Amino acid sequence: MREGLSVDEAQKAVLKMTQRLAAETISTSEAAGRILAESIESGRRQPPQDCSAMDGYAVRRADLLEASADSPISVPIVFEVAAGAKAKRSLEAGEAARIFTGAPLPTGADAIIRQEDTRSDAGRVEILVAPLAREHVRDAGEDFGIGDQLIASGTLLGAPHLGALASVGRSVVSVHQRPTVAILSGGNELVEPDRSADPDKIVSSNSYTIAAQCREAGAMPMYLGIAEDTPTSIEAKLHAGQRADVIVSSAGVSVGDHDHVRGVLEKMGCRLHFWGVKMKPGFPLVFGVIESTGTLVFGLPGNPVSASVTFEEFVRPVLRKMLGHRALYRPVVRARLTEKMTKKAGRLHFVRVILETRDGEYHATPVENQSSGVLTSLVRGHGLAVFRAECEGLDVGAEVDVQILDPAFFDQNERGF
Amino acid sequence: MREGLSVDEAQKAVLKMTQRLAAETISTSEAAGRILAESIESGRRQPPQDCSAMDGYAVRRADLLEASADSPISVPIVFEVAAGAKAKRSLEAGEAARIFTGAPLPTGADAIIRQEDTRSDAGRVEILVAPLAREHVRDAGEDFGIGDQLIASGTLLGAPHLGALASVGRSVVSVHQRPTVAILSGGNELVEPDRSADPDKIVSSNSYTIAAQCREAGAMPMYLGIAEDTPTSIEAKLHAGQRADVIVSSAGVSVGDHDHVRGVLEKMGCRLHFWGVKMKPGFPLVFGVIESTGTLVFGLPGNPVSASVTFEEFVRPVLRKMLGHRALYRPVVRARLTEKMTKKAGRLHFVRVILETRDGEYHATPVENQSSGVLTSLVRGHGLAVFRAECEGLDVGAEVDVQILDPAFFDQNERGF
Repeated sequence: MREGLSVDEAQKAVLKMTQRLAAETISTSEAAGRILAESIESGRRQPPQDCSAMDGYAVRRADLLEASADSPISVPIVFEVAAGAKAKRSLEAGEAARIFTGAPLPTGADAIIRQEDTRSDAGRVEILVAPLAREHVRDAGEDFGIGDQLIASGTLLGAPHLGALASVGRSVVSVHQRPTVAILSGGNELVEPDRSADPDKIVSSNSYTIAAQCREAGAMPMYLGIAEDTPTSIEAKLHAGQRADVIVSSAGVSVGDHDHVRGVLEKMGCRLHFWGVKMKPGFPLVFGVIESTGTLVFGLPGNPVSASVTFEEFVRPVLRKMLGHRALYRPVVRARLTEKMTKKAGRLHFVRVILETRDGEYHATPVENQSSGVLTSLVRGHGLAVFRAECEGLDVGAEVDVQILDPAFFDQNERGF
Repeated sequence: MREGLSVDEAQKAVLKMTQRLAAETISTSEAAGRILAESIESGRRQPPQDCSAMDGYAVRRADLLEASADSPISVPIVFEVAAGAKAKRSLEAGEAARIFTGAPLPTGADAIIRQEDTRSDAGRVEILVAPLAREHVRDAGEDFGIGDQLIASGTLLGAPHLGALASVGRSVVSVHQRPTVAILSGGNELVEPDRSADPDKIVSSNSYTIAAQCREAGAMPMYLGIAEDTPTSIEAKLHAGQRADVIVSSAGVSVGDHDHVRGVLEKMGCRLHFWGVKMKPGFPLVFGVIESTGTLVFGLPGNPVSASVTFEEFVRPVLRKMLGHRALYRPVVRARLTEKMTKKAGRLHFVRVILETRDGEYHATPVENQSSGVLTSLVRGHGLAVFRAECEGLDVGAEVDVQILDPAFFDQNERGF
């Protein structure tokens, strides 16, 4: 087992052990946010035939080249074509057909005159404009033709993709499976929120934060509850979690006598890949793989902020890779520090910051209390400013990278255009 | 009824008729993405008492001011405090207590020596460093005290908020209700995706796109199916939709003889507020309110792109306002055009574009086919470039506002720091 990796080394190590999950077939209407596991080719044309893009009249352009508002041309309305219907017969010279948006163009017709450019009366219509060639005609296959690739495998499906899938008759679709994540907390001091009255106890808030982080990443959390500080209790929980793709335990991986997780993991046939990442918060992170099941195991530190940040940096990219995402990482912006920051060289620091925009630039202010126990500091921050391992501090006004955690950060209160 | 509003006027008109929905109480673990409808004040302290931030030894600092690696000070280990347990007695001068992360600080102790800074042997521990005042002690109430406001009403709840709610013992929480949206399509040419073989028919893809857009916005879609082009069929569907907060119909609002929706709406006691918005795509938008139920009714145009874009610009902000969001709007970035664009003055154009980053700037290229029937163009674009009503065109290199629709647009393939 390696010890004391850099953030970069640790991230590479966890992603190296991560495979994209196999495919499953789900209802198209449930597929938003999932990654397509097949290539979608069209088996039909859209529109299936030439059709009208407007409500108006189907005409033969050659009849109407001289038409204008000053000298309209009057033609008989010989039939009507509704959307979803077939034309009764072909259109002959000197004729017009009433037509509606989406209705198939009758044979013989080669342009549509918009209703607004006509006057109709007693079975005849006066055309007030000369049509351009194929004006207001949607060509068969304009949206897509037979055999066109509509959506490439690996695409993240959004609302318009679901519409496009429906339009080629696909009511089910193949996407990558969602990972399951078994979550446990460890510690005799921990209780569930409904038992929070005892002053010697602390609510196991990590399971709430981590389950929500799993869901946000697209994975399915499976909460196993609080393990007591005994090898037997921890082993029972970890066994229950082996069915999952990933186990995330918080607490129990430190150096204290009461931290049993590591020992139990080794006994279970979990190959430990590394212990300790040179970062703050979050040093005591352990990562391994249960060899019999392939389950990835993350032992996160117990402090709420350390647990949340190590999940963010190591577990989230793993879950997104399993889901088939290409973009495994959060947005990053450059921001100017509003306060001088000092640190020792050695560990990479993730500092919770509030961002403000002034003069077209982001400005980052660290939240007041950076203690790893202070979960409310994550509540207040927009993201994590990154101070590299070798950095010994930065002055006011210096630029830092800030990883954006707030999912609504880029949303706007004003329309913005 | 007003006709031919600007995009801005139409947006103001729909938001003016929109109320934030009342509150409901839900499980905290399900509350991510929802807007808090109460102010969360803490009824307890976190941590509840002074406790250790490390595994190590609780000591009295005054005993150890001269300790160093060269001249360690040896003290007896008189008891042990595990997390979740109480100390047996207070710590006296010249004593140390074994202590674990999260365990309460014994009375009398005022600093923690990390395990790494000690050597222990046969009931005694050698201290290798002089502690700072209250070093590695987490003060009672460091995270929050009794009566502290932890989360303000109106906050969008994310993963750390759920952890914070749990940590104050809140297993349920009050959030704004989610709007229901009744969706119907109209047109004899439309069929569901599993009936897509008939070449005279077109799949009703709008219902898929719109339902996914509702879900993405946080609302609950309720699909009513395809209405036939008869007042009776449309009326039956609209009646079924009156239970919803919002009705979204696509097609049926244009000027053609077969467009019955407007007539039916008026008959149902729907006060029509406006018809027609000076935009492209999407001019024939109708908006009204059913007076007896307060249901907002949007009659969107039938073309897939027009329906999707008008939903985006008018329905989505309404749904987000109902949900209690402050940020009603999508992110907007400035981008440089890679192609010359021309248009007529009069309507605001939303042009689907692909964005690329070069030299730290965004560059916007319109997708090839801007026909409002071409849903696949939305699939390919990252967002909508905005060309104002009065604009008659822009040169290559000119700056435009681009509204970002792709939810993954800011995510990164590389870690970025």
